[in-house]
Amino acid sequence: MIVRDENKMHGTERSVSAEQWTSVRMLLADDAMGFSFHITHIKAGSVHTFHYKNHFESVYCIKGKGRIEDIATGEVHEIEPGVMYALDKHDKHTLTCDEDFVFACCFNPPVTGNEVHREDGSYAAPDEAA
Amino acid sequence: MIVRDENKMHGTERSVSAEQWTSVRMLLADDAMGFSFHITHIKAGSVHTFHYKNHFESVYCIKGKGRIEDIATGEVHEIEPGVMYALDKHDKHTLTCDEDFVFACCFNPPVTGNEVHREDGSYAAPDEAA
Repeated sequence: MIVRDENKMHGTERSVSAEQWTSVRMLLADDAMGFSFHITHIKAGSVHTFHYKNHFESVYCIKGKGRIEDIATGEVHEIEPGVMYALDKHDKHTLTCDEDFVFACCFNPPVTGNEVHREDGSYAAPDEAA
Repeated sequence: MIVRDENKMHGTERSVSAEQWTSVRMLLADDAMGFSFHITHIKAGSVHTFHYKNHFESVYCIKGKGRIEDIATGEVHEIEPGVMYALDKHDKHTLTCDEDFVFACCFNPPVTGNEVHREDGSYAAPDEAA
């Protein structure tokens, strides 16, 4: 059994930050669960475009307020606590954060922790990253 | 893109309840994400023994207070917001809830929604359930 406390992981090697977000890697590929699990904090006033071409991701909103735009369809969905979006078509999307978000995120295949967001908003596939 | 709101799913076919818990199935096997994702509410004062012999499960505590005992080792871990446990060895465990829990749970393989908790605390493997 793995037990980890997010409150103690900020500022450690399992926490990755950019100016507008912090992602705490609760489970990564080497935990061998078959998915990875992240708690991601996004700052109010920020806008992000992501396109996980090689991963499925689900995102559940624990706190915060904002919206997601599906770039392919132009549809906009409001995000607030209790709302989940799942990128089952590797959907390219823009996330706008009005109030600080806290998200619970699952990735399949699991993120290894060595990915970087590429210019196109994607992560490399596991074999490209290796 | 799948978008679902947990607040609107209680009392629907995607919400499963027993006396002491409710599990809202945000993502199931047929969503084809490769994992399932559930928001599970557990009532204060309840004690549960589970043994997912055929699934890996991770559980992140959003709200509540209690503890988990690893039956094999006797170790007890306090659970409060921010703590995650992951049953990477299909660990048999007893969960004690002191204050109402809200958990974000991921399962691999994904739960189909047709499983029942068996007497031994497990879910059947997908091929047994089929």
